[in-house]
Amino acid sequence: MRRSLRTLTLVNSNERLDDLDRNGYKIIQNPEVFCFGIDAVLLAHFAKVTKREQQVLDIGTGTGIIPILMHAIYQKGKYTGIDIQEEMVEMANRSLQLNELTEDIKIKHIDVKTIKEHFDGHSVDLVTTNPPYMKGTNGLKNEHPSKTIARHEVLCTLEDIIAAAGYVLKVKGKLCMIHRPQRLVDIICAMRANKIEPKRLRMVYPKPGQAPTMILIEGIKGGNSEMRVEKPLIVYNEDGTHTDEIYEIYGREKPQV
Amino acid sequence: MRRSLRTLTLVNSNERLDDLDRNGYKIIQNPEVFCFGIDAVLLAHFAKVTKREQQVLDIGTGTGIIPILMHAIYQKGKYTGIDIQEEMVEMANRSLQLNELTEDIKIKHIDVKTIKEHFDGHSVDLVTTNPPYMKGTNGLKNEHPSKTIARHEVLCTLEDIIAAAGYVLKVKGKLCMIHRPQRLVDIICAMRANKIEPKRLRMVYPKPGQAPTMILIEGIKGGNSEMRVEKPLIVYNEDGTHTDEIYEIYGREKPQV
Repeated sequence: MRRSLRTLTLVNSNERLDDLDRNGYKIIQNPEVFCFGIDAVLLAHFAKVTKREQQVLDIGTGTGIIPILMHAIYQKGKYTGIDIQEEMVEMANRSLQLNELTEDIKIKHIDVKTIKEHFDGHSVDLVTTNPPYMKGTNGLKNEHPSKTIARHEVLCTLEDIIAAAGYVLKVKGKLCMIHRPQRLVDIICAMRANKIEPKRLRMVYPKPGQAPTMILIEGIKGGNSEMRVEKPLIVYNEDGTHTDEIYEIYGREKPQV
Repeated sequence: MRRSLRTLTLVNSNERLDDLDRNGYKIIQNPEVFCFGIDAVLLAHFAKVTKREQQVLDIGTGTGIIPILMHAIYQKGKYTGIDIQEEMVEMANRSLQLNELTEDIKIKHIDVKTIKEHFDGHSVDLVTTNPPYMKGTNGLKNEHPSKTIARHEVLCTLEDIIAAAGYVLKVKGKLCMIHRPQRLVDIICAMRANKIEPKRLRMVYPKPGQAPTMILIEGIKGGNSEMRVEKPLIVYNEDGTHTDEIYEIYGREKPQV
């Protein structure tokens, strides 16, 4: 009863409350602006948290989906999410209150380009980011401005994000990112330019035999060269059902046929 | 009769003569040193020749397998193969005589690091290379010195080869390479440093669901950014038979079951 009253006050009328299907964790989202998709889930699963006090920074956190999902999955880590959009930060903070996560996750209104004013160098173990996929204003349409900022590199570039990661990461700290295959070259070159060596790459394929539509990449600050390309991550079987691995990643039971 | 006598004189006693299964093309190989494998066939198929007078340079040509195979497949193009090993060049030239290809293919004893003494800049349409896969002397064993040179970066590095390609290629000319996934980052960064933009990547998987063991990559001199990652190239089906695509690449009939 207390819980539902609290929920009532925390969710605005244009928003909705979605269950993450993991230990009761929930997220507030505004469907007009942005609702998380499979990319957030894949990234949260790809970027492992192994230590209780592990310092994680999520750049461009939006609704806070990545730190909330990672806390739900790993049940450990200390997270900070930053975002340039004040109204997203405000909404994400309401999700933290609702999940009683304000101890372990902080969401702050920070422009990644001013990272040095807010964070010490060599202070973070893991940076996660699900950045805007589209270069400049390619394919830009009339849409909600917050949506444009989340999808297009209008307020920050891929290079800004990777440079910020290069600054905050401890030596041997990791940067984990999900992006589009088209930008793999830009990502790899920007990582190396910022002394983050790409070490692990996983391609995400919609179906067997199709071209990949997403890439998951992990770089290690000060790592030595040589990258491991992992086995393909395939979302759907030929028959249109989800693959076993996708069920595992979502932490759901596979329907029995 | 004339042909067989000629063959007799051209193949030395420690060598063997192999049929390429394409229009009667043959290759002389020394099994103690190097025999071509699937990587040469995949590269020859990946790097298309479309024009009769297209200028192709194969760096580290060894037995001359790449230009000979490409001539067999495309029936066009003017090829030069260069290699640092004099005895390989001599053997490759005998393969050219044997196939009566001395008009369309030249094999020369040239160290890639001296490319500027032998080639004009902006003179080549396509560079192919199947370079040594192993960095420095990693995993180096007691073996035939020619084998070591073909497999390890002892006489030239990946960067030497890509720099040479950057020098000889015309604007919009292509560099096509086969290599190991571990070196993808080095390849991408070296290409971009030499103004060859990586544009097309294809991963080669031994079987579905396994990690890739080879990569095929194409860069375009002066190309704009954004790379296309193609569908996976899978060598074997789950049951251990070759995939249909491998049969197509080898230009062979699939056995009827």
